Amino acid sequence: MRRSMVSATGLAAALFCLSITAQAADKPRQAARPTGPTSAEVLAASTPTDWRSPDPENLLYMDLAQGRVIIELAPAFAPAHADNIRKLVREGWFDGLAVDRVQDNYVTQWGDADGTRTPKTAQTKLAPEFVVRGPALAKLPFTPLPDRDTYAPEAGFSDGFPAARDRKGGQAWLVHCYGMVGVGRDMALDSGSGAELYAVIGQAPRHLDRNITVVGRVLRGMEVLSALPRGKAAMGFYDKPEDRIPITQVRLAADLPADQRENLIVLRTDTPTWAAYVESRRNRREEFFPIPAGHIDVCNMPLPVRTLDATKDRGR
Amino acid sequence: MRRSMVSATGLAAALFCLSITAQAADKPRQAARPTGPTSAEVLAASTPTDWRSPDPENLLYMDLAQGRVIIELAPAFAPAHADNIRKLVREGWFDGLAVDRVQDNYVTQWGDADGTRTPKTAQTKLAPEFVVRGPALAKLPFTPLPDRDTYAPEAGFSDGFPAARDRKGGQAWLVHCYGMVGVGRDMALDSGSGAELYAVIGQAPRHLDRNITVVGRVLRGMEVLSALPRGKAAMGFYDKPEDRIPITQVRLAADLPADQRENLIVLRTDTPTWAAYVESRRNRREEFFPIPAGHIDVCNMPLPVRTLDATKDRGR
Repeated sequence: MRRSMVSATGLAAALFCLSITAQAADKPRQAARPTGPTSAEVLAASTPTDWRSPDPENLLYMDLAQGRVIIELAPAFAPAHADNIRKLVREGWFDGLAVDRVQDNYVTQWGDADGTRTPKTAQTKLAPEFVVRGPALAKLPFTPLPDRDTYAPEAGFSDGFPAARDRKGGQAWLVHCYGMVGVGRDMALDSGSGAELYAVIGQAPRHLDRNITVVGRVLRGMEVLSALPRGKAAMGFYDKPEDRIPITQVRLAADLPADQRENLIVLRTDTPTWAAYVESRRNRREEFFPIPAGHIDVCNMPLPVRTLDATKDRGR
Repeated sequence: MRRSMVSATGLAAALFCLSITAQAADKPRQAARPTGPTSAEVLAASTPTDWRSPDPENLLYMDLAQGRVIIELAPAFAPAHADNIRKLVREGWFDGLAVDRVQDNYVTQWGDADGTRTPKTAQTKLAPEFVVRGPALAKLPFTPLPDRDTYAPEAGFSDGFPAARDRKGGQAWLVHCYGMVGVGRDMALDSGSGAELYAVIGQAPRHLDRNITVVGRVLRGMEVLSALPRGKAAMGFYDKPEDRIPITQVRLAADLPADQRENLIVLRTDTPTWAAYVESRRNRREEFFPIPAGHIDVCNMPLPVRTLDATKDRGR
């Protein structure tokens, strides 16, 4: 009786490519199944120009005993915070600090929980960079999604980062999708500096958008942050200091010799390939889906990331 | 230097009640901060009639070494599947089976991965219950949210379950929010039975809506399912059988003596209190938020759950 195992595989077909005509027992109302390439086929047909190599000045490697987390900073949205985080990393700020909070369906947070350290070169507070306005907005790449968004007039992608835009209000901002990295702050809007950071580990907490500086996203290693034990104290803090998860070190890719860098490439979000990828996820072509959604939320678009040198994938 | 610790608390103020006027350094465009009770104040002011006690025939207690998961079945949406799952539980189907798949930002899945068992009393396949139509639809309670939804004409709640409705198309369905429980199936639409189930552990995979039978939701214990190690094989399956997470047992509350039942109560979703709770989350009144979102996604509305007998909360 293989049903259950097959069943499991069937569910997961969501993510994979199968191009057989559906047998519609519960006959869908739609006239016909969508045609066109699946997500896997779009990616298989991509060419090198569809991908970009993130700037090593924007790549953080955060090492925990549990594994490596790679974060890409977004200076187009938060230049001062990205700069301050580079300074913090370069002075070894995070080395020996810890993940001190894991709140289920919300955030994993790390940094200087006890407030015992003072940065040597970095700022301790910064003006908020919650939204982009003015000349910076005009320069910002933005590829809108075709579908409405619950929270914003427009949602889409800016150089690989999920973002929203309000053209009437003259502003754009990064949105709190799964894996986005933000800057912890106190009540004062300028109290964040990057000395404490968090990553979203659940349903996108979009109410945080425009209320906090979002500074980047996890490109690889989210499962390191999302599978940590949840803290038992209020708001998911670890109630005992010894439960905290130590950070071995955080390094900037630019500061490492070439042979110690991970050659990640990321799918560009301003190409016809990206548009085809979006469409393959708006209307799944895999057999598993008799009813394609016909819509996509900005936080349901995964960002494809690959290792350029395939040999580096070994052992991961 | 207390900033970082305060910073952490500040971020989490999202969930808690503080009623001080914001000091808007980055001056919000909105004219005034929203007034009215916070979420915590709405719940504090609720009365016993704002809460319901789930039917013990719909409550599953799933025990793992890591803790207890309590699931409420939704027979209004999937009566045949709810009934079949009761049969499976009563014949001890899940006892000694295991969680065999944890895919990051997607699902935790459990059941008969190896397909070695055959149910004694339960069906092995069932007609799909992907949507509700006809007379059952007319009887379905439905409290719409005031905001648009990315995926459906209308989104809201039906007796505590997040749901969507298409009045023109004459159908309603449960939506795949964090913590919702669905029925694994093969490609054949009638191949699911409840012998293998999954819970959503990441961003709502709404493309699964109407393509699979959703049968309930986790009321308590999501952190047991969401913090499990991610499987390293394709689609998050555990590559070694010994990595699987054993299920000690699953029981129906109705089959337990009263003193072994957990007296959970759940906030009703068809009351003025619920409407006030929704509004308190559409426009956060806490000081932390200078820019209230003004919108809410159906998957960003947590369902308040309490233990009626407060003494039972101890030690959890």
